[in-house]
Amino acid sequence: MKVAVAQLNYHIGNFEGNLACMRSCVAKARSQGADLICFSELSTCGYPPVDFLEFRDFIHRSMSVVNELAGDSFDIGIALGSPTVNPDLEGKDLHNSVFFLFEGKVHHLYHKGLLPNYDIFDEYRYFEPASSFNTFEFKGVKIAITICEDIWNLNHDNPMYDLCPMDEMIKEKPRLMLNLSASPFSFEHTNDRLNVIKENARRYKIPIFYVNCFGAQTDIVFDGGSVVSSPDGNNFEELPYFQEVLKVYDLEDVEKGIFSKEQRKDKAELIYNALILGIRDYFTKMNFKSAILGLSGGIDSALTAVLACDALGPENVTALLMPSMFSSEGSVNDAQSLAKNLGIEYKIIPITNVFDTYMQELKPFFKGLPYNVTEENIQARIRGMLLMSFSNKFSHILLNTTNKSEMAVGYGTLYGDLCGGLAVLADVYKTEVYLLSEYVNRHKLRIPINSIAKPPSAELRPGQKDSDSLPTYDLLDPVLYQYIEKRKGPDEIINLGYDRELVLRILKMVNKAEFKRYQSPPVIRVSYKSFGSGRRMPIEGHYLY
Amino acid sequence: MKVAVAQLNYHIGNFEGNLACMRSCVAKARSQGADLICFSELSTCGYPPVDFLEFRDFIHRSMSVVNELAGDSFDIGIALGSPTVNPDLEGKDLHNSVFFLFEGKVHHLYHKGLLPNYDIFDEYRYFEPASSFNTFEFKGVKIAITICEDIWNLNHDNPMYDLCPMDEMIKEKPRLMLNLSASPFSFEHTNDRLNVIKENARRYKIPIFYVNCFGAQTDIVFDGGSVVSSPDGNNFEELPYFQEVLKVYDLEDVEKGIFSKEQRKDKAELIYNALILGIRDYFTKMNFKSAILGLSGGIDSALTAVLACDALGPENVTALLMPSMFSSEGSVNDAQSLAKNLGIEYKIIPITNVFDTYMQELKPFFKGLPYNVTEENIQARIRGMLLMSFSNKFSHILLNTTNKSEMAVGYGTLYGDLCGGLAVLADVYKTEVYLLSEYVNRHKLRIPINSIAKPPSAELRPGQKDSDSLPTYDLLDPVLYQYIEKRKGPDEIINLGYDRELVLRILKMVNKAEFKRYQSPPVIRVSYKSFGSGRRMPIEGHYLY
Repeated sequence: MKVAVAQLNYHIGNFEGNLACMRSCVAKARSQGADLICFSELSTCGYPPVDFLEFRDFIHRSMSVVNELAGDSFDIGIALGSPTVNPDLEGKDLHNSVFFLFEGKVHHLYHKGLLPNYDIFDEYRYFEPASSFNTFEFKGVKIAITICEDIWNLNHDNPMYDLCPMDEMIKEKPRLMLNLSASPFSFEHTNDRLNVIKENARRYKIPIFYVNCFGAQTDIVFDGGSVVSSPDGNNFEELPYFQEVLKVYDLEDVEKGIFSKEQRKDKAELIYNALILGIRDYFTKMNFKSAILGLSGGIDSALTAVLACDALGPENVTALLMPSMFSSEGSVNDAQSLAKNLGIEYKIIPITNVFDTYMQELKPFFKGLPYNVTEENIQARIRGMLLMSFSNKFSHILLNTTNKSEMAVGYGTLYGDLCGGLAVLADVYKTEVYLLSEYVNRHKLRIPINSIAKPPSAELRPGQKDSDSLPTYDLLDPVLYQYIEKRKGPDEIINLGYDRELVLRILKMVNKAEFKRYQSPPVIRVSYKSFGSGRRMPIEGHYLY
Repeated sequence: MKVAVAQLNYHIGNFEGNLACMRSCVAKARSQGADLICFSELSTCGYPPVDFLEFRDFIHRSMSVVNELAGDSFDIGIALGSPTVNPDLEGKDLHNSVFFLFEGKVHHLYHKGLLPNYDIFDEYRYFEPASSFNTFEFKGVKIAITICEDIWNLNHDNPMYDLCPMDEMIKEKPRLMLNLSASPFSFEHTNDRLNVIKENARRYKIPIFYVNCFGAQTDIVFDGGSVVSSPDGNNFEELPYFQEVLKVYDLEDVEKGIFSKEQRKDKAELIYNALILGIRDYFTKMNFKSAILGLSGGIDSALTAVLACDALGPENVTALLMPSMFSSEGSVNDAQSLAKNLGIEYKIIPITNVFDTYMQELKPFFKGLPYNVTEENIQARIRGMLLMSFSNKFSHILLNTTNKSEMAVGYGTLYGDLCGGLAVLADVYKTEVYLLSEYVNRHKLRIPINSIAKPPSAELRPGQKDSDSLPTYDLLDPVLYQYIEKRKGPDEIINLGYDRELVLRILKMVNKAEFKRYQSPPVIRVSYKSFGSGRRMPIEGHYLY
């Protein structure tokens, strides 16, 4: 028996697009002699469809894709994911399901049992979990289907669930398992996933075809990395990350386990590729062509520019250099060098005239009051406004250049440098920005050394440095990591050896900045705890204030 | 036996504040001879604490409040809500619990069984539901405790749940039920709630003390309206909405059912009060004093100004009038009349000079290109920037004046008129803005007739009217209501008799504006489907595009 694994990029709610994509894979798999083809979780409608699922019309359209593909299944088995209506009156309205189509009909229907409801996942909001699980026979071969989380309660060691679907199905002695997933990327998660698949193979002693999707859905990046594992879990092939793959396997080869291929897991490379895909898919799926961003001469905007070029091509990236009276000459030079290195178009628009006009108009009201954060914010907002004007006039999408450290402590101006359609680096700590900058400079100097080497500054008042307002990033980032990613409270962090006053100061800054993050652009998620839908905090919460 | 009902305003994560508040009520209830006092759901930490619940430190602090109050319970029973750690390894880490404290100890501990996980609710994200439920005895009286949603599966007619805690507990023959709730306001929900309580009383033939909290948590408003019902459900007292109440009842009086009082349920009055509370609590809980807003001469900003005055006092409200070359003279006059009617400070800052400077700076880049939405947005953004400058300089919080119709179809400028700390009217359709304007004008003309009567216009180009870009609001709002509140798909709405092309045009506008709403201020929720955490849509989703 030949099994085709289809690792595809779906678009939420784009039923025609998703259908066309799957259909062409079915044809290719057929031409390569495949007996069955396996797509990934909710492949008809894309993942996560969130509240679109509350529309019956959306479910009907999803089912139309299933019906269309049934027509293609006359000579090949097709496993694909779709939401289905729960026929029981009790429970949530829907199931998260997989159809196995064959000979124009539904050959088998499976409902997901383990529903993730943490971080970015809200599956209990929509789906009723299944409680019984069965295998089915196809061309004389018994097959077990599972969906994503279903294989993550091995040995019942996951306290969140009391079911383990495969423990039920293995009693029916399936010869292989198909797992249809929508497993998002985080640079710390790739090994976990591979291990869980291998452990499943070992426990059940059957080959596993684990099919993940790839592609970005605004903020959430799916990385692919589908896996085919031999029954002993020792021989496996991990398919490439961040790209479309259609590959046909002979079941007997997989059972023998004569192959082995793992993808490289380099942190900088993984994050780089995830960000590139994040940018590219945002533009493709929103039907945008070109990007704009502000270059300050600093490292964050420089790295964002490199990523934009690599994602969209330098011909689709425009930069604005917007020096003020406080910009050092070096900053403009560094920004220009970068633009030249990348071959992108750039314009220089000093903000001094607009700033002066604002000051003149505000003078009657501000008279006598000292220069403070107000005037700093005005500069940042003039830049945001100029960028948005270019965005509006030329249909460029503004890329936000804020990093995760700044986003965490609120070091940024709402409606100023926090503008943008997409925040490229806001899940990348400043210390990781340096790592990525080295990575993109590894073959050729693209980001000027000076942008990397100089002390970070917002340049909104004379001689300003980030370290005037913030702890240095080597002190800040590890504390943020413990608080944001590790969800540790103040005492736990202090007990790790960090200074008490520093920790309390940082945690307070993070909590006080919630109102800014609420209005910030969507953030490309590359860690396992990103700002956005995976981290929900009350704005007026008084905790650690 | 005397039962005190304490309808209080909690502050999320403000453990000291919540404790002090409850403590003073315990003292008052004791002085009035109460045998027990009942607070509401998660009263130690406030509702909804969202991801604060993932911090063990947060749970410990919550438990400290329970321990403190145990000390106060030497001679009075205290029922209060707190998250607790689930002692089982299996399942989610926490329970949503109620402690009944007496004589310094935990007399009874109850865990919530029905966990809402829809709209703004995400309880499955944090809590393990209980599956067994017991009454307890206090001073010779058997008491059943339930928490909020627990009483919403009467006759098992709620398909979302298969449990009904009271059906279990009634077997133990309790003499009364305490329900501790955190039930948010929507103007369409108040009667439902009252009916559910009455039906519960009838079914179980016992008195019910239903204790809701009141107060706003940024976007979500809790309205109070606690209810004490006789066993036949025919005699009941509904306590006032939107205010603190401490009232002591004699159980025997309630059993006899000799009282009856229902609150008035006038749509305009309810929404008005909810918005006032929403503004006031945002300022109180964030420790802000004064507000600023832009007055255009139109009805939305006029109504927002009235609400701000009534919530914060006219002495704490400042208005900016920012006419452009396209502002009609009438607009400035109308805005001035309003400011005078309200007695608020106002400043006039024409935006023409700043606009001209921008145009001059952009001219080399925009040369030859026609005036379009770019220049319209620049005007809106200059206004946003001026308002934010005042906000920064004088610590005024900017109130956003966008209405729900505009927010729905994206008729507004990001970083322009979509700026603000809090969106006051963004859950109020334009047609409801008129209703509320009549309401606030009922005793005295506050909003000038002209602001109400003239056709809505953004005044961003000569002679512009909203109706140039949008269907008229009497056509738009009913379709929006069907799509947003009723979750109806295109065909269902068309089948209600609306024009096909109009419906498709409106639904597409709504879905295309998702990126704007993502970066908009939090919206005070007054309907049962508001923009914000209760409505989650993919930005790059392609549905109905």
